[in-house]
Amino acid sequence: MHLTISRAELSRVISAVSRVVESRNIIEILSNLRLVATDDTLTVTATDLAIVAEAKAPATVAAAGSVCVDAKLFGDIAKKAGASEIILLLDDDKLVVKSGRSRFSLRTLPAADFPSMGADSFNAEFETDIADLLSSVAFAAGTNDIREMLNGVLLRSKAGKLVAVATDGHRLARSQGDEAPSFDDIIIPNKAVSVMPKGTTIVSVSPEKMRVIGEDITITTKLIGMEYPDYERVIPQHNDKVVAVNRDEMMRAADRVVTVSSEKSKGVRLSIASGAIQFSARSDAGEAADEVAADYSGEPIDYGLNSLYLRDMLAALPPGKVKLALSESNSPAVVTGENDNWDGVLMPLRVN
Amino acid sequence: MHLTISRAELSRVISAVSRVVESRNIIEILSNLRLVATDDTLTVTATDLAIVAEAKAPATVAAAGSVCVDAKLFGDIAKKAGASEIILLLDDDKLVVKSGRSRFSLRTLPAADFPSMGADSFNAEFETDIADLLSSVAFAAGTNDIREMLNGVLLRSKAGKLVAVATDGHRLARSQGDEAPSFDDIIIPNKAVSVMPKGTTIVSVSPEKMRVIGEDITITTKLIGMEYPDYERVIPQHNDKVVAVNRDEMMRAADRVVTVSSEKSKGVRLSIASGAIQFSARSDAGEAADEVAADYSGEPIDYGLNSLYLRDMLAALPPGKVKLALSESNSPAVVTGENDNWDGVLMPLRVN
Repeated sequence: MHLTISRAELSRVISAVSRVVESRNIIEILSNLRLVATDDTLTVTATDLAIVAEAKAPATVAAAGSVCVDAKLFGDIAKKAGASEIILLLDDDKLVVKSGRSRFSLRTLPAADFPSMGADSFNAEFETDIADLLSSVAFAAGTNDIREMLNGVLLRSKAGKLVAVATDGHRLARSQGDEAPSFDDIIIPNKAVSVMPKGTTIVSVSPEKMRVIGEDITITTKLIGMEYPDYERVIPQHNDKVVAVNRDEMMRAADRVVTVSSEKSKGVRLSIASGAIQFSARSDAGEAADEVAADYSGEPIDYGLNSLYLRDMLAALPPGKVKLALSESNSPAVVTGENDNWDGVLMPLRVN
Repeated sequence: MHLTISRAELSRVISAVSRVVESRNIIEILSNLRLVATDDTLTVTATDLAIVAEAKAPATVAAAGSVCVDAKLFGDIAKKAGASEIILLLDDDKLVVKSGRSRFSLRTLPAADFPSMGADSFNAEFETDIADLLSSVAFAAGTNDIREMLNGVLLRSKAGKLVAVATDGHRLARSQGDEAPSFDDIIIPNKAVSVMPKGTTIVSVSPEKMRVIGEDITITTKLIGMEYPDYERVIPQHNDKVVAVNRDEMMRAADRVVTVSSEKSKGVRLSIASGAIQFSARSDAGEAADEVAADYSGEPIDYGLNSLYLRDMLAALPPGKVKLALSESNSPAVVTGENDNWDGVLMPLRVN
């Protein structure tokens, strides 16, 4: 292997794929990147065995070849390179990296040792901004939940459109996306959601795998092969106590009063009455109250919420008006914004 | 106590003094601020028993008084306040904080419980930018060293001028400052150094205490009442192998080659010969070499250094030319910049 590549291009592809590399690996090869030089391209690949990330950069290749090298070390060297061009050269089993007056000679592993995910075959393909769709609900997913299917985002095709759903049992978020052909429901693990390429992508799905081709990077991920809970059953359909309020004012008031909360749950009480919501919280440290103007003409109702969950959900909505639809103090609340492609559910919290 | 104060002023004084408050306190009063309202001023005080920080802000005081309140909680509330004016009001033993539509009622402790450092009496007073002087050497001080006198910065008056010195035994930095009257050497603990007011200050010293009056804040600190080592003995006087090099080029080359180092010491070898310094480092991960142009005409010499110590020292100097004066590979190096008020010493390191 012998090639010349621009520092900017090399840094770009290394950073793009390195987000998949786990920082601590028992299996050494998983802390490596695989470099493959062919024709006029350097292909850099990273994997954690569940996700494969691949990025390509133009290069002047004098001799084709392939090798594996430590991802962090190689990334640091590319970033700090002294000149705008970098020469990569395989010298026996060492990868030589030259730039300006500096020269590195790095330990390598054979390219053949790099794990492969096997052949790809997919049942459906569509074009969409998948990162945008998944990330609009991902905050509500479980993390390290023993119900493994909750540690990811459900993606389904319903009535010809994509729907993404995430829930951890305390909150739920649902978002409708672009048109797509029919395919069996899949659950995309949280980590894969977090490394999705931004912008318009070509997505291919099968029951076992999803491949996302973005402008700079291709991500292929294994899926959570389990059944997702019947989430539609938990979204209330008849909550008729609807209060409309400015998103930012609500976020600020909730954030302000929970300053006094010491517990983890950060509970906040909403006392909703004609024209206003009163927010309150209390702990050993003291009490706090705040008030926000609201459109509401129903009967007064008190409602307890986890303020962190409320904040996450409001943050997923665009600024402007948000609606909270309630039924009773001990039943779930539905949250919607001005965009009717998105809705969320918050479970009530007992607040002192 | 009953007063009105601007949110910006209240936030300013709380942040200024809160740097002294330790985040975890067994003694509850030490996580509190003392508020004292008199005439047209709110005085806010924090202490960790070794340092007292005091800041004043203009306020409209309807009723004088004093109380202690949790520093973190009170600071958060001031920052998040909904309006630009804040009302503070002592209601029985609760501190009521009102701003816009929000109202807090906070637990307090009696002002009388707040620890006092006792009366101040000082032997000498002078005007100087003390933060600038101390921070130019503070990076070289010990941290949690069992030789307690090293965990701070020595300040002395020598031949009518201030001199600040710090060393951890592996490196030493010395800086000469403004004119000052004669006083006995003092050692200022690291934490006090880090909270010194910026800009021109009035400094008063005694063998036990130092008081620094800045524009926004007054800091009074206990001193380390021990004898400082005879540092002048360890600064080489006759190092005649002098190499001059550009500071930034040297920093970058050293930083680049130690990318391959895995050990904590981050050793770098300097091979100094006519016209250039070659930097090199090696570890199990690989080898690295780089070169920087240098003014040098003496005999070639190899010199090992801890690259982190080298970086810290170079960062304390202004950009431009720096000089490294050596004698032998196993004796200390003297580092100077274009400003002749500052010099540093680095101990050699055995590098593989």
